[in-house]
Amino acid sequence: MLKDKDIVFLWSPDKGDTFLLNLEKGSKIDTRLGVIQHDDIIGRSYGEEVRTHLGSIFYILRPNMLEFSRRIKRKTQIIYPKEIGMIIVSLGIGPGSTVVECGTGSGSLTAALAHFVGDEGRVYTYDKREEFSRLARRNCEKWNVAHRVEFKVKDIAEGFDERNVDALFLDVPNPWDYLERAKEALAGGSRLGILVPTTNQIEKTLEGLKKHEYVDVQVMELLVRYYKINAQRIRPEDMMIGHTGYLVFASTVRSVT
Amino acid sequence: MLKDKDIVFLWSPDKGDTFLLNLEKGSKIDTRLGVIQHDDIIGRSYGEEVRTHLGSIFYILRPNMLEFSRRIKRKTQIIYPKEIGMIIVSLGIGPGSTVVECGTGSGSLTAALAHFVGDEGRVYTYDKREEFSRLARRNCEKWNVAHRVEFKVKDIAEGFDERNVDALFLDVPNPWDYLERAKEALAGGSRLGILVPTTNQIEKTLEGLKKHEYVDVQVMELLVRYYKINAQRIRPEDMMIGHTGYLVFASTVRSVT
Amino acid sequence: MLKDKDIVFLWSPDKGDTFLLNLEKGSKIDTRLGVIQHDDIIGRSYGEEVRTHLGSIFYILRPNMLEFSRRIKRKTQIIYPKEIGMIIVSLGIGPGSTVVECGTGSGSLTAALAHFVGDEGRVYTYDKREEFSRLARRNCEKWNVAHRVEFKVKDIAEGFDERNVDALFLDVPNPWDYLERAKEALAGGSRLGILVPTTNQIEKTLEGLKKHEYVDVQVMELLVRYYKINAQRIRPEDMMIGHTGYLVFASTVRSVT
Amino acid sequence: MLKDKDIVFLWSPDKGDTFLLNLEKGSKIDTRLGVIQHDDIIGRSYGEEVRTHLGSIFYILRPNMLEFSRRIKRKTQIIYPKEIGMIIVSLGIGPGSTVVECGTGSGSLTAALAHFVGDEGRVYTYDKREEFSRLARRNCEKWNVAHRVEFKVKDIAEGFDERNVDALFLDVPNPWDYLERAKEALAGGSRLGILVPTTNQIEKTLEGLKKHEYVDVQVMELLVRYYKINAQRIRPEDMMIGHTGYLVFASTVRSVT
Repeated sequence: MLKDKDIVFLWSPDKGDTFLLNLEKGSKIDTRLGVIQHDDIIGRSYGEEVRTHLGSIFYILRPNMLEFSRRIKRKTQIIYPKEIGMIIVSLGIGPGSTVVECGTGSGSLTAALAHFVGDEGRVYTYDKREEFSRLARRNCEKWNVAHRVEFKVKDIAEGFDERNVDALFLDVPNPWDYLERAKEALAGGSRLGILVPTTNQIEKTLEGLKKHEYVDVQVMELLVRYYKINAQRIRPEDMMIGHTGYLVFASTVRSVT
Repeated sequence: MLKDKDIVFLWSPDKGDTFLLNLEKGSKIDTRLGVIQHDDIIGRSYGEEVRTHLGSIFYILRPNMLEFSRRIKRKTQIIYPKEIGMIIVSLGIGPGSTVVECGTGSGSLTAALAHFVGDEGRVYTYDKREEFSRLARRNCEKWNVAHRVEFKVKDIAEGFDERNVDALFLDVPNPWDYLERAKEALAGGSRLGILVPTTNQIEKTLEGLKKHEYVDVQVMELLVRYYKINAQRIRPEDMMIGHTGYLVFASTVRSVT
Repeated sequence: MLKDKDIVFLWSPDKGDTFLLNLEKGSKIDTRLGVIQHDDIIGRSYGEEVRTHLGSIFYILRPNMLEFSRRIKRKTQIIYPKEIGMIIVSLGIGPGSTVVECGTGSGSLTAALAHFVGDEGRVYTYDKREEFSRLARRNCEKWNVAHRVEFKVKDIAEGFDERNVDALFLDVPNPWDYLERAKEALAGGSRLGILVPTTNQIEKTLEGLKKHEYVDVQVMELLVRYYKINAQRIRPEDMMIGHTGYLVFASTVRSVT
Repeated sequence: MLKDKDIVFLWSPDKGDTFLLNLEKGSKIDTRLGVIQHDDIIGRSYGEEVRTHLGSIFYILRPNMLEFSRRIKRKTQIIYPKEIGMIIVSLGIGPGSTVVECGTGSGSLTAALAHFVGDEGRVYTYDKREEFSRLARRNCEKWNVAHRVEFKVKDIAEGFDERNVDALFLDVPNPWDYLERAKEALAGGSRLGILVPTTNQIEKTLEGLKKHEYVDVQVMELLVRYYKINAQRIRPEDMMIGHTGYLVFASTVRSVT
């Protein structure tokens, strides 16, 4: 039974309009199909419906990480809901993992990492801009995983505080400057992930990975193509996201001799 | 420190040759760079190196789910390492989730699901062919997650035994025949995932989802493009996987009136 | 030296603003960088510049078929500048070819076909809606190839008037209904091209091609990905066209026995 | 009626086996379905069938430029049948065009350019390696367009002999070194096309185009995805070409001041 603070995904059969939100006693949502009272959702269960004051139906669905990261309140430009799954799977993250991330940004990946490491895992996220750290914390609270995260306002040029972590992700403009630092933090044989938007950055990153003796390097990009859902007229959507960024993965080794 | 049964990913700096295996006292691996004794790996740590009898180095790396699913011993044709992340993220799976899957096949997705639900979660996987059930169990044992999985040799035409599960995935030729059964098993507002290789199957699936009153339907395909890792010659690989299958996702509702 | 009626492509170095137009004595173009008099272009040559009344430069470039088809005045929904090259090449069209097309639509493909068949070739284009025939003729006149085209306002259910043509292209909702008619018009061993937006239409088209004994069938789709042109930040554009249509090609044979 | 030297495309309904060849009296083709005598094709027409000595049917089809460029005898690595249409359309080539190309390579693009410029047009192709020039000439002879081409064995570092050409295409490892030379050869406002396989080369090319004051620059890549042609199981092919090269286009202007 849904209660205060729970997160719900509302979906309208009429228009496909959607809302992702945390319930708050006494609050309301303005939709173009009428007003929904949070109190009308509290006490119901996922899968049930709620009606606007004009009688329009919205279904109360469980939100998933993809929708959450898509709709997160953001101040940063780079987004990558479509990359999240690949990052989690390629970094070898799972329940109990310890993961370091930099920069925190709006916390989209932070929340995803915290989701997948579970209560036994831990996420350490760095950003030198305090406002992002705060925003990311609020976003993680919405997904109810902030307690698994340590938000650090700190420049990683000074290095990471952690040692022996299972995975590390860099989403910064100049990842090549932090590859030695990343190596210090990562457990042996563990995976570093990097997101860069341009091929010029791939070039510098690959040079850095070689210099710092990372192994098993992979560079990839993901394209997701959505289809229209009319059974009689199956075809991809007219427009698609053409690019968010390139993903680079590599593993650390103790010493190359 | 690595011990008997642990899983390791070996990577050769010379040739890029790789091996993914569970350590077994007294066993050996034949590579084109010479023979590696498992006993030479046992007692070492991830990130260290091991040498073949000819002196060639292999690094001992932690395997990730992507590599594991790519190299799984398989008897079935459909493979989808690249889809695994999207499936996990879109189904809303995480530590503690209960998930139903059919068919088990070679257990590639089974192992991934079991990985991400953690020790508090549970995976129920159905296949009517006993040999696949056995193969999948062995594969899950290799990844050390078989204890989180219930392997069922059973035709789902009779329905699923579970109720109120968090997510359900169908990888069968005729998913439209089991949509009512899937609904009985799924918790309200929860997510059904489907993989179909052809657009004809998308058509029937979409018709079925409409008939059985699923909501928030999405159809997508994923393209992953790997790049060569020469910093001075950045370019995608000549060949890429052009297709594995289409992913369909939808949510259940209690009753549409 | 440019004269009245000539077609020019104007390009602004400041903003990248572009205009494609036929020169007309006494006319002017309103741009957000000021007004350009056609008379200031007439008498100049391609590659030179013209200035707006506010002093902004526009370069006078030769238009190419890709830009022309992109900017054509249209009343129809389907567009396919990116497919034009593949169609021309796959249909085996060249100087001197005779080609039949249906429907005419806005004349985007008509103009391209007429461009490539040259003065020795001939294009016969069918549409039952007179307004499209008129629009397409005006568009072909702009590209100065209307004299190579016969515009026919006619339902192809009655068949094509031509025989022994080198290639035939169908861009209609139900191409499968005209496959016998197409065969009558095509020379033996020649190529039929079809554009359909949905996979349901591919299905019916493939069934029709089999029934009517076409051979060497191919189905394909084209994705064009544009890159940003900043040398220091090379990356694809954020958004790309995800779909226009599927191309189907097949060859006729005299009789399959 | 087909005669000696004519080019035919043979297609087997049994196996989909294909052959592209110029007829030669007295010659024969060995296929895995039996031997075909050229003399059995001479005198027939496109669209008819020919039988092997074992009775297997092959249809005699008209070859198109796409098939020709795919099957051309080659000594060079880079191939781009899928790019040919886009190159022709983007360069503004048509009947009567004069075009310069470097390097000649195996003559795949040379033949295509010569095809589209017709008997009134002219192609000038440069390569410093005589063996390629010879191979390309033989390939163009097969397509019966060699008379439209001037094959030059010459280093373009010395510049092009032509002036005021309608289009120029560079397929060389270092196109940025020839941008001033290309400008001298091109008519004002005309189009330069470049193919480069790596993003590092895009970077240098973009810098060169800026330095040499080219305008209206575009960078793109093309992906062609073939589908299986089973109407009941519509789906893309498992594997696709992931990369051949990036296309760069730009226009010349007389002088930027």
